[in-house]
Amino acid sequence: MSAHNGKRIPVAVLGATGSVGQRFVQLLADHPWFEVAEVVASDRSAGKCYGEAAEWRLTADMPDAARNLKVKDYDEELTSPVAFSALPGEVAGEIEARLAKAGHAVLSNASTYRMDPDVPLVIAEVNADHVKGIERQKQNKGWAGYIITNGNCTAITLSLSLKPLHDAFGLDGVMVTTMQAISGAGYPGVPSLDMLDNVVPYISTEEEKMSEEARKFLGSYDGEFTLADFNVSASCNRVMVRDGHTEAVSVRLKNKATVDEAIEAFESFRGRPQELGLPSAPKQPVVVRREKNRPQPVLDRDTSGGMASVVGRVRPCDILDLKYTVLGHNTVRGAAGASVLNAELLKAEGLLPS
Amino acid sequence: MSAHNGKRIPVAVLGATGSVGQRFVQLLADHPWFEVAEVVASDRSAGKCYGEAAEWRLTADMPDAARNLKVKDYDEELTSPVAFSALPGEVAGEIEARLAKAGHAVLSNASTYRMDPDVPLVIAEVNADHVKGIERQKQNKGWAGYIITNGNCTAITLSLSLKPLHDAFGLDGVMVTTMQAISGAGYPGVPSLDMLDNVVPYISTEEEKMSEEARKFLGSYDGEFTLADFNVSASCNRVMVRDGHTEAVSVRLKNKATVDEAIEAFESFRGRPQELGLPSAPKQPVVVRREKNRPQPVLDRDTSGGMASVVGRVRPCDILDLKYTVLGHNTVRGAAGASVLNAELLKAEGLLPS
Amino acid sequence: MSAHNGKRIPVAVLGATGSVGQRFVQLLADHPWFEVAEVVASDRSAGKCYGEAAEWRLTADMPDAARNLKVKDYDEELTSPVAFSALPGEVAGEIEARLAKAGHAVLSNASTYRMDPDVPLVIAEVNADHVKGIERQKQNKGWAGYIITNGNCTAITLSLSLKPLHDAFGLDGVMVTTMQAISGAGYPGVPSLDMLDNVVPYISTEEEKMSEEARKFLGSYDGEFTLADFNVSASCNRVMVRDGHTEAVSVRLKNKATVDEAIEAFESFRGRPQELGLPSAPKQPVVVRREKNRPQPVLDRDTSGGMASVVGRVRPCDILDLKYTVLGHNTVRGAAGASVLNAELLKAEGLLPS
Amino acid sequence: MSAHNGKRIPVAVLGATGSVGQRFVQLLADHPWFEVAEVVASDRSAGKCYGEAAEWRLTADMPDAARNLKVKDYDEELTSPVAFSALPGEVAGEIEARLAKAGHAVLSNASTYRMDPDVPLVIAEVNADHVKGIERQKQNKGWAGYIITNGNCTAITLSLSLKPLHDAFGLDGVMVTTMQAISGAGYPGVPSLDMLDNVVPYISTEEEKMSEEARKFLGSYDGEFTLADFNVSASCNRVMVRDGHTEAVSVRLKNKATVDEAIEAFESFRGRPQELGLPSAPKQPVVVRREKNRPQPVLDRDTSGGMASVVGRVRPCDILDLKYTVLGHNTVRGAAGASVLNAELLKAEGLLPS
Repeated sequence: MSAHNGKRIPVAVLGATGSVGQRFVQLLADHPWFEVAEVVASDRSAGKCYGEAAEWRLTADMPDAARNLKVKDYDEELTSPVAFSALPGEVAGEIEARLAKAGHAVLSNASTYRMDPDVPLVIAEVNADHVKGIERQKQNKGWAGYIITNGNCTAITLSLSLKPLHDAFGLDGVMVTTMQAISGAGYPGVPSLDMLDNVVPYISTEEEKMSEEARKFLGSYDGEFTLADFNVSASCNRVMVRDGHTEAVSVRLKNKATVDEAIEAFESFRGRPQELGLPSAPKQPVVVRREKNRPQPVLDRDTSGGMASVVGRVRPCDILDLKYTVLGHNTVRGAAGASVLNAELLKAEGLLPS
Repeated sequence: MSAHNGKRIPVAVLGATGSVGQRFVQLLADHPWFEVAEVVASDRSAGKCYGEAAEWRLTADMPDAARNLKVKDYDEELTSPVAFSALPGEVAGEIEARLAKAGHAVLSNASTYRMDPDVPLVIAEVNADHVKGIERQKQNKGWAGYIITNGNCTAITLSLSLKPLHDAFGLDGVMVTTMQAISGAGYPGVPSLDMLDNVVPYISTEEEKMSEEARKFLGSYDGEFTLADFNVSASCNRVMVRDGHTEAVSVRLKNKATVDEAIEAFESFRGRPQELGLPSAPKQPVVVRREKNRPQPVLDRDTSGGMASVVGRVRPCDILDLKYTVLGHNTVRGAAGASVLNAELLKAEGLLPS
Repeated sequence: MSAHNGKRIPVAVLGATGSVGQRFVQLLADHPWFEVAEVVASDRSAGKCYGEAAEWRLTADMPDAARNLKVKDYDEELTSPVAFSALPGEVAGEIEARLAKAGHAVLSNASTYRMDPDVPLVIAEVNADHVKGIERQKQNKGWAGYIITNGNCTAITLSLSLKPLHDAFGLDGVMVTTMQAISGAGYPGVPSLDMLDNVVPYISTEEEKMSEEARKFLGSYDGEFTLADFNVSASCNRVMVRDGHTEAVSVRLKNKATVDEAIEAFESFRGRPQELGLPSAPKQPVVVRREKNRPQPVLDRDTSGGMASVVGRVRPCDILDLKYTVLGHNTVRGAAGASVLNAELLKAEGLLPS
Repeated sequence: MSAHNGKRIPVAVLGATGSVGQRFVQLLADHPWFEVAEVVASDRSAGKCYGEAAEWRLTADMPDAARNLKVKDYDEELTSPVAFSALPGEVAGEIEARLAKAGHAVLSNASTYRMDPDVPLVIAEVNADHVKGIERQKQNKGWAGYIITNGNCTAITLSLSLKPLHDAFGLDGVMVTTMQAISGAGYPGVPSLDMLDNVVPYISTEEEKMSEEARKFLGSYDGEFTLADFNVSASCNRVMVRDGHTEAVSVRLKNKATVDEAIEAFESFRGRPQELGLPSAPKQPVVVRREKNRPQPVLDRDTSGGMASVVGRVRPCDILDLKYTVLGHNTVRGAAGASVLNAELLKAEGLLPS
């Protein structure tokens, strides 16, 4: 590992040429603590400079600093202590384990290890204390480093909004129907012929992930991870939106709450990143809009730089107790941004390898 | 009223130049029983020929027979015994009542009289027996004719799918999240700036209508209308789809049912229109798709000429009992087509004025 | 070859599971002269029944007759005298030649042989006389059968509109900017991330094809094919439209014409299919709309079942002479429908093998 | 007029609640020279605070400084020396003249005065010298202040790209086909039913404006405005894009140029704003992309904060001489941003009233 006395900590981005990889490169461009020192991608790109290998598809231009980085192969050794992984599921398992074993802190977006009993699944505002599980992971796996995962984009947006309700009133059941953005499927992803004038009422494995990941996020760690004791029933749909997952949520509460009490819980909620003043932390993790027709992806997905969950339409539910709509930026808060915030948390807690 | 000995029954279309009005004109063009004899619209159009007054926005060309009809004003007397109403809510109340009083059978798409205790709200397959209420309406209102309403497009699609479940297992609660087409808002309707790359999580009064209308459809008539005794909780959203409302539904049942039993209930369901062999009746009111990613608006909205509710993804729900997705063509089955089928039912039952 | 005494002529569809292949199966379902007897696709599909192999993506349901046809491999011998080819370019060359050699009439959508000096490139209304080239093709290639190609979808729509102008006034130059539908790229085709809220100002090899094919269509055959002697300059763009290519055209004429004279030329134009009364021939190959804002894909692409070129906005051009907008259905008139009409022409002219 | 010794110059925004008005408020939020001191709108909004009156529809949040400004009525006197006008055409004529008469510098987006022989129509990089016409305007109109207009959004984007070619090679004719964004029609603007799966091949008066405005921009001022002596033939289309007009351009040149020479002319072009280092000036007014499929609205409209015209696909034209695609952000460079840059030019040239 390279030293980084006082300077920005060098980080590697794995899967750097894909959609989420590009978002990592963008979000880290002017980061006060981290500096992209290594970009890693598949054979096809390796050896080229990043500016040439990555077909850049974000609105703002590619950061200049990244443009000339030479793309490394998955097999090359990395010198950065921290690796952000946007690897596809098929290869994530092996590569992330190898890096963790070699002593790197791996912050992963892949689903491979999310439900692993030794791996923390962390939203910095929701279950920052789960990073305590790192020690046990190192022991059980025999690794010098470790893996921390963030969840599925839909589960993160949902869980950020559930946490204040769970803390204040106790959740007893969650129904959620999603309207998800096409960027969630990566590139090339969903054919335009499938999306124009259409809704696709199915996203493979998404409903299962939402259910189990939300319960791990809101569960506890006490030597082992215990899932929260409520059910989540999800229906996942793809709609013609670039970025921003919209979710219609209904909750059953252990202790009844009025609409105003729920709004108060959403708005007063702060997590560990807000306490620590982490650079990527939104001032308020859950923002509530009062207009009757918000949140909307095109208007609200960039709230707090895309790092907040935006809630609206809080109202009573005639079947469960309360319902609301929540929106989150799926490639920022739901992916790259979540990992970056987790890395900031780990640094602030003194848990990054040096 | 004009005589129609053996020939097709002359009908009037009210609000004939709007979206639903055009759909009426299209659906009735080759109808075996009815013939569009009068088209009625606002001052602006009155006096012109229909071909000139209606800016035609359906894919197929305007029917030739309609092209040269002279558009009548709302104040003119009508000679057709049957009037299909696509009037906007602001004017429907007064005009429809006047026509009913004068002896016409008014088949209305407007929301004005749907929940009126004297007015049947009818889906021909769901509650054909509610037409018995016509007699009481005539007496109570002192009208020579009557008004029959069909419901909100979202409520019709939902209720068609609920009916077989209610009959077989008894409904105890319904949660539904809709993804509704832009044609539901009429023309000009929703600005393109609001729909491109966006979801609008609110449609005015839609959630209330879904709840109360579904319960009236599935309720009973025994001298008066009694609402079905289950709650419906709806979340309504607008998505960038031309035609076809998609609804993610979850139901709690009085008598538990397996997925296979529910599918069997959907597929074996037949109503009065199927018994009577009405011209616009779909062979099967509820069609079940087995593919994991259906129904989809662009592929399934025209099933049975747009007159069927298409169900898919029937599966268990961890909060209520079962969940599924249902799709219906909002301007055909959800509007003009529903009225036409109701008129066919009334004719077959001998209830049309002559 | 199978006999077909009085009955419908059996035909094969090559590449039957793809977008254009499905369109062939749909258009031929109720054809008075032809009957789909064989469906042919790649290894992946071969051996399955068509209903299972083809993921059907057209709005209307798959024709029942096709559902149970067993999909043949590209290597199997065919018994139908006529083969409609929707083969991808990579394999079309070899397979189509093999079938032509074996005595089949191959009606191809592939670009491989379009500019071959021995192969007629035919729009039935534009250059029906080019089928005379079949004899020379058989001799030169030593084939028992032959290949007839129809052109690129954009070139067909354009050329149908150019033909009346060329006949009446003589073309001296053509500028065209296209706004092309996504179905032109097949399935999966263009990623939704590239099309949402976007225009892609480039389609590989499309501009070259438009230029050379238009000149072959409007050229002459006199023992060999001579290109028409005007230039075509094209700019091709992809826009978010499912079906229907819109083209903004400007022409320089040898003999000047007024707008009214051009409209008269468009509307009075008839070709050989109209003379012969072929089943798929539109009554009028070029339809002119007078409204100031037509043609539009969603309103006009299905004119005459998608077989007409729809022209509008005919007006003077300050740089060349006249300009107008033309719209054509790219997978009907621009692909499968064009081949079917060509086959009808060949049958009527007595040129189909038996 | 209020004094502004050393501080930011107070400015008024007319039509402040509309689409372009909101863009003005956004672009001026952190402006080094100007400060929004007054927001003016119609009766309906007047008297409310801006945060309440303006239904904000831009992605980033409404600037805090604007939120509490009280909206003034069109009839109230203004104290700011500079007024940016986003007024609708119906009212712009009278109100702008009244303000100019009263001594204000009015920077207008309305079309009313663009072709007025006394009013400069200015793109700061293209014809900065036309501001010399202000003196004559004041005399002829008898006004204490003056009106400067910027052009139609499509004409600005086009003219920025034409200027370097005109300077280097002399233009002899221009053909252009546009694919324009929906934001160009304001809000509510184009109905979603007209844009979904569609192209609208007509925009009222747009083709005429492109032609005459381009020739005024590239014309000369010598006591009076002389139009440039080449023809422009435009075909204008609306496509489903939020922001960014794409234009396919073909030019005939007086002195022939190679593709490389044209690219060199585009890239080396600098105007007066670049010389003066104006705050809103893009470093390079015309940016050339080398990729074969650029510019694209979603990727390139925000180049240089939306202030550059982005050119791509420069290549020979077989009818005229050269063709290319140009893209510009219609509500930034094509509207509010153009006015702001003009105001900066006027300030730098010492022409603003104090």
